[in-house]
Parts: sequence; structure tokens; C-alpha cells
Amino acid sequence: MANKDMDKLIAHAKNSGFVYQGSEIYDGLANTWDYGPLGVEMKNNIKKLWWKRFIQESPYNVGLDSAIFMNPRVWEASGHVGGFSDPLIDCKQCKTRHRADKLIEDYDPDIHSDGWSPEKMMSFIREHHIQCPDCGSEDFTDIREFELMFKTYMGVVKDAKSVVYLRPETAQGIFVNFKNIQRTSRKKVPFGIGQIGKSFRNEITPGNFIFRTREFEQMELEFFTKPDTDLEWFHYWKEQCMQFLLDLGLNKDHLRFRDHEQEELSFYSKATSDIEYLYPFGWGELWGIADRTDYDLGRHQEYSKKNLEYLDPETNQKYLPYVIEPSVGADRLFLSVLADAYEEEQLEKETRLVMHFHPAVAPVKVAVLPLTKKQSAKATEVYQLLAKEFNVEYDVAGQIGKRYRRQDAIGTPYCVTVDFDSENDQSVTLRDRDTMEQIRLPIDELVDYIAKKIRF
Amino acid sequence: MANKDMDKLIAHAKNSGFVYQGSEIYDGLANTWDYGPLGVEMKNNIKKLWWKRFIQESPYNVGLDSAIFMNPRVWEASGHVGGFSDPLIDCKQCKTRHRADKLIEDYDPDIHSDGWSPEKMMSFIREHHIQCPDCGSEDFTDIREFELMFKTYMGVVKDAKSVVYLRPETAQGIFVNFKNIQRTSRKKVPFGIGQIGKSFRNEITPGNFIFRTREFEQMELEFFTKPDTDLEWFHYWKEQCMQFLLDLGLNKDHLRFRDHEQEELSFYSKATSDIEYLYPFGWGELWGIADRTDYDLGRHQEYSKKNLEYLDPETNQKYLPYVIEPSVGADRLFLSVLADAYEEEQLEKETRLVMHFHPAVAPVKVAVLPLTKKQSAKATEVYQLLAKEFNVEYDVAGQIGKRYRRQDAIGTPYCVTVDFDSENDQSVTLRDRDTMEQIRLPIDELVDYIAKKIRF
Repeated sequence: MANKDMDKLIAHAKNSGFVYQGSEIYDGLANTWDYGPLGVEMKNNIKKLWWKRFIQESPYNVGLDSAIFMNPRVWEASGHVGGFSDPLIDCKQCKTRHRADKLIEDYDPDIHSDGWSPEKMMSFIREHHIQCPDCGSEDFTDIREFELMFKTYMGVVKDAKSVVYLRPETAQGIFVNFKNIQRTSRKKVPFGIGQIGKSFRNEITPGNFIFRTREFEQMELEFFTKPDTDLEWFHYWKEQCMQFLLDLGLNKDHLRFRDHEQEELSFYSKATSDIEYLYPFGWGELWGIADRTDYDLGRHQEYSKKNLEYLDPETNQKYLPYVIEPSVGADRLFLSVLADAYEEEQLEKETRLVMHFHPAVAPVKVAVLPLTKKQSAKATEVYQLLAKEFNVEYDVAGQIGKRYRRQDAIGTPYCVTVDFDSENDQSVTLRDRDTMEQIRLPIDELVDYIAKKIRF
Repeated sequence: MANKDMDKLIAHAKNSGFVYQGSEIYDGLANTWDYGPLGVEMKNNIKKLWWKRFIQESPYNVGLDSAIFMNPRVWEASGHVGGFSDPLIDCKQCKTRHRADKLIEDYDPDIHSDGWSPEKMMSFIREHHIQCPDCGSEDFTDIREFELMFKTYMGVVKDAKSVVYLRPETAQGIFVNFKNIQRTSRKKVPFGIGQIGKSFRNEITPGNFIFRTREFEQMELEFFTKPDTDLEWFHYWKEQCMQFLLDLGLNKDHLRFRDHEQEELSFYSKATSDIEYLYPFGWGELWGIADRTDYDLGRHQEYSKKNLEYLDPETNQKYLPYVIEPSVGADRLFLSVLADAYEEEQLEKETRLVMHFHPAVAPVKVAVLPLTKKQSAKATEVYQLLAKEFNVEYDVAGQIGKRYRRQDAIGTPYCVTVDFDSENDQSVTLRDRDTMEQIRLPIDELVDYIAKKIRF
């Protein structure tokens, strides 16, 4: 859909209460965003559906909510202290600062330089005469590594011993709890642990609305397998993730797998595949599925000096499980859902803006509209009935067609109109967002009708 | 209940998978805690029920999810930069550090020195010859203020301009979005904005398990009223909060209001009342309900130079709304629910540990238990049916009585036993956690039966 450009989407998100600029009355704070009344409902829906599919309904998986603050040794073991950084170069002419990997990818979008050494990047930049995007110069400094973790101090004294970091990923909270959870939940390998939570990375170049932000929310699953079965499970979870996105209603033409090339892989990874989405600005990562082998558990075993091996009750073998990690950003998925749902639909006499959200994702499930103020009492009764079950809007202001358009624009799947006959026949008119068709329904069948439609 | 001591509760929480020590394999990190598979389910339930009651079902309120990182000017306006600190004194003899207000309250639990000046605290300490709890000396330094906000740097350069704070409360995210939300949701005063999210305070003396932690989750409502109606709404929300706690099943003898005395009030507050809970360690704050007047909006108007007044469409008057703030910690409420549910029940021949959670709060709604391994296929069928709707456990290990006890100990309200007859009569036995009574139910009535019981 050609009309899906980013500025329109951002403007609509802001004007209808999905996403506002963070700290806006203070002229904002670099690429922070606040989810408004509609945004928080929709984000919560996305998180709940992920949890339902990947934790509640899965016979394998359980959940976790670990703290953002962790012992700094965790980040030594994980390789984040010392190793987690962005490759930065400065233009010597205009003094602007850039990410070397981004310059390369802007030069050729087919190149993924994620796993490259600084030397390899630098020689690529020189060889291809890549220029500073600000001034056109080719005169760059060498690459310097820029630490991506946010650092602060805990307690009264500020010294090396009181340093703590904001976690850059939720995954490590899962790894360090592997034994505790295996023991208390009495799960047998293969099993998984999922977590939803905030992570923080001091990115040099955040951008593209909520696509890349310094504070973001992850939905991660770490799935523990027998060492020789990891690739089977890798493929299993790839398919599960894709299926979830299709079930959310995303257009399959806007989704594709991209398998990482050998040289792009982290040194410990056997295989990695991204699910990419066609954002308004082009294809970009949505979901990463990685075979991390036994790297993480092995490192934590080494650093903590605790035995993290699993004793297989069937074979009596001890081993460190291999790990498959499907990891998706809640904010990115939110952006995909928002962009995918947006349509400026050409009707006979007008254009209507409509958000075609899956009913389970829609922030408002049903709007209750008294035809005129005379139906307010009855409409309030209907509102109260429905509000026990769903997120409902009540709207009495303006002419009915205008109120329908307002609900279309925020993606409300159903409008219930309380009219002159409702008091007599105890029925209402229910209008469908996508077809705009209307049916007459008894009030006491409303809850069941809508509940069935919004099931996931 | 005398058996509710804290150590038992913590041990049970850890051993069954409610709450683990944070970063445990690295010997922890000062008073951080991770919510395990049962804990995360229960905490999510508590948060969902708060949201349902205070946002979804309320005709007045809408939700928000604002960023943790905010423009630092927000914290100047709110008074947190410069003014948000703990009064610390050091013992000159043994060099230990203490919170002056805590020394006073430990000396006399009826005194609330929250609003006292450092001078007033110091003279109270001297007058009453309060001693160092570590060495008994009365020789203290003067009080120094200790900044409670966690500070970090955003971006490449670390200087005064790149300082950002971890928010110490979610409330300010609501105030700075007041206009955006009022405009986009077209709400009229009185209306409220609620938010659930993490906050961070560099407390000197965290403790009592999850009662006081440096990283914690708040559930806050800011309710905007006409200036002359604030006290009415203050009383309204006090009652609503208490009712919510009673509906969650907390024992009313473990709950009380404590109105703040005049000298204890923040200078901008007209009235504040706490709902206190009788924790295993004694009475402590659970929910704070405060009349904050127009202080916050006034400060943000002054600092941002944006007009935050509301134009009342009925009277055509412009004014800054007054604010009632009911604020509760999700972790504290979790602790109250956990402590309140705990019972070591004396049966005829044994003691059973049972958690009497409200079914809506219970982490596991139903356990599916095949009587023997022969019923596994049928039991799996029942499990799959139920897992579409609820968080379900499947347990085949051990003798049935032992499996019942295991579910009692984690508060599962219903156990479904699939037995020799189930294949023939398509029915199962359903056991009630509290009464231990069993009834026979057709499998196709299970979902409706349980859904009705766990309603809130």
C-alpha cells in the first residue's frame, strides 16, 4: 500500500492516542515515545497474545519476570562488558559521528556487516570510497568501539564496586535462572522459559519511530534442547513464530525469512534466521531466531562456578542443554501491526481511514453509540454490560456517520448503535468495521457474539 | 495466623517458583528479586485485575504507558532533582550509615517523621538519646541529603547535557501527557489516567523481601477533578481502593486506613491516607491515596511554559484540575496476597500447606492429573482443551494425594482427575482446593464451570 508512509503513520498514531513523543511538553527526549490510551491497550494485547501462544498454550514453556538490575558478573559472562559495542567513526572534515556498519549498509543494503571485524569494515569503507553522508568527505578516523550498556551506581558510594548496568537484553535473566526454574517447575528438557520486559541500549543512531529506541520491550523465549536436537527445534520455532505473525493478521507478502550467512553469525551461533517485515521504510528485522548452542550456559557455568548441567532422567546423561532463542521486540511488532492495518480506503463518495486490526489486537473492541441523546440511559446500560468484558468506548458526540469514521480510524471492529427501537425490542444494531454491514442483535447475545469474534 | 513468618514465606516462595533471589548463581545483587513461573503468572493476574477494575470498567479512566527515560527538566519541575533524597547520618564511632527518619521510627513506631526537616530530626535524635543500632554510640554526624534517583548518561558524550534519570515514579509520565491525552481521548474532567510500570529509587535501606526494593513496579492513577470537588473524589477513591483489596480476598482485619497528620503531609497535599496491611513484619504501607491539589500541573506549566489549563465546556471556565493520586506497588500487593493466602492447615492426620488465593489471582487455575499413566492420552486431550483458556499444569508424577498437596501448596483452585471411567462417561472428577470436596463433571462443561469460578 503506497499510502503507508511513515510520517502519516506517526501523525495518525499521535493524533488518535496510540503513541506520543516522550516528554513532549519539554520538547521531547531523543527518540523516546509514550504509548497513549489506545497504544497501551494494543501493546498489552500484543503481549498477552504472545504470552498465550508461547507460554500458556505451549506444553513446553513457562514464564519468568527477572529484575532489570543484575549482578555485573552476569554481563562479564555474557560478553556484554567489554564486547558489546557499536563501531563508531568520526568524519575528520565535518566532525560528525557515524556507525561504520550503518554506512556500509546504506552504501549497499544487501550487505550485512554485523559480524565483521573493525578492520574489515574500515577496509571496505576505504575500498569503496564511502563518503560522509553529511559533507561527502572520505576522510574518517579509525573505528572506535562504543559501549552500549547504560551504567549507573547502586547504593551510597559511587565506585567500581557499586556499578550496575541496565540490562541490554532479557535473555540473561533466563539463563541465570535455568536451574532454579528447572528444579521448581520439574520441567524436562526440551522445555523453554519466556519473558517479557524492558531492555536498554545506548544506541548511537536510534530512529525510525519506535523501530529502534534506547529503551525497548522484548518478548524472548529461550528453549533448552538436547545437544543433538537443536536444529530440529530451530526449524520448529521459526515456523511457530511465522505462524503467530500470520495469525495476528499480518500480510504474508510483508514477511520473509532471512537466513544469516556464515560470516554474519556470532561466533557461538550455529544458525540464525530473521523474520523481516516490510516497514514503511523498507525491509527490517522483526524477529530473530538463533541457535545459540550451549554458549550461554557454558559461560555462566564458568563464571559462576555453579554446575548448570542437566541430568537427563531417561538416559542418565549429564549435559549442558543447547538453546534456541526466538526474540522479538514488542515495539517493533506494534509498529508492524500498526503499519499493516493502515488503509485509506476509497469509498464511493469519500475516503475513509480505517485500521484493519485483528479484533484480538484492536485497542477498543466495541463502541457504544446512542443514536441521539434520548437513548443515553439505555446505551449506558449496554456500555456497563460490555465494559465488564472488553475495552469499550462510549461516544455520544456528533452525527452517527462521523462517529463510525472515528471508530474506523482507531480500528474498533464493532460499533453498537442504540436506537429508537432498542427499548422495545431489547436489541441493537451491530456494525462491522471492515464490511460496514449492520445486523440486528438482542442485547443479551452481544457479549457472546463479540467474545467469539475476538478470540485468538 | 501465627505461622506466617517471613522466612517461611520467602522459603516457600523460592522453593515453589514464586520468587527467587535475583542473580542467585552470582550470590545475588542487593535485594533484587526475580518472579519465577508461578510468580510471574500471579503478578500478571494482579496487574490485569487492577487494570480491569480501574481502567477498563471505569467510565472515567484511560491508560498510558510512558517511557522510563524522560527529559531531565521533568524532574526539576517535579522537585525530584535537588529535593528527592534520604536524610543520612553516620555514626562517628563505628562509621556505619543510617537513615535518620528510620532511627526515629524504630525508636517510636507511632512517630511518622516523613515531613520533618533535617533540623527537627536531628534535635529529636539528640533529645531522646537515640543510639547507633550497631554500636550504641550517640555520636552522630549531621544529616546529609542523599539523592535517590539513579543517574546515567544517554548518547556518546558523558557530560551534564547527556544526564538522564531512571524515573522514581510513574506519576510524572501521566502529568506531562495530561493535555495530549485529554485532547485525543476527548475526556471531560473529572477523568483519570492510569499506568503500570517500573520505577527506580536508590534506597539506602531496601528490605523485607519484596516490600522495599530499588527496582519496583507501580500501579498509579492520577484523577483530575474540578478544584472544588477534590475532597469528594479523594474519599471516593479511598473506598474504591479498599473495596478492590477486599474483592481480591484480603482479610479485612489485616487492612486499615491511616490518615496522615497535618505535619506529615507534603507541603502541597491537602490530604493523604494510606491503606496499611498487616505484613508478617507488622503494619506497613500498601496503598497511598493523596490529594495533590494542582501542584504538579502547576509546576509543569511553569517549567514547560505550556498552558496546561483545562477549558470546562459546561462553565466555559479555565482552570488547572486538582489531582487525586491512588498509588500502589504491584510488588507490595503481591506480598500482601502471598502472605494473606498462606495457611498451614491442621487436618486429621497431617498438616497441609495451602495457599488460599482468590481463583482470579491464583497462578495456576487448574491442574490436570491422570490417575495413572494409562489415562495419559485422555488427560492430554483435557489439558489441551483447558490450556486454550487458562494457565494449566499437567502432572503425572507420583501418587494422587501427593499431587493434590503439591497443587494446594501453590494455590491451584481446581484439580481435574482423569480416571478409569473418563473414557466411557466423558467426565472427570473436579476437586476444590479449599473444601477438598470432589464432584463429577462432563468434560464439555469444564471450561464454563471454571471460567465462572475465576471471574472477578
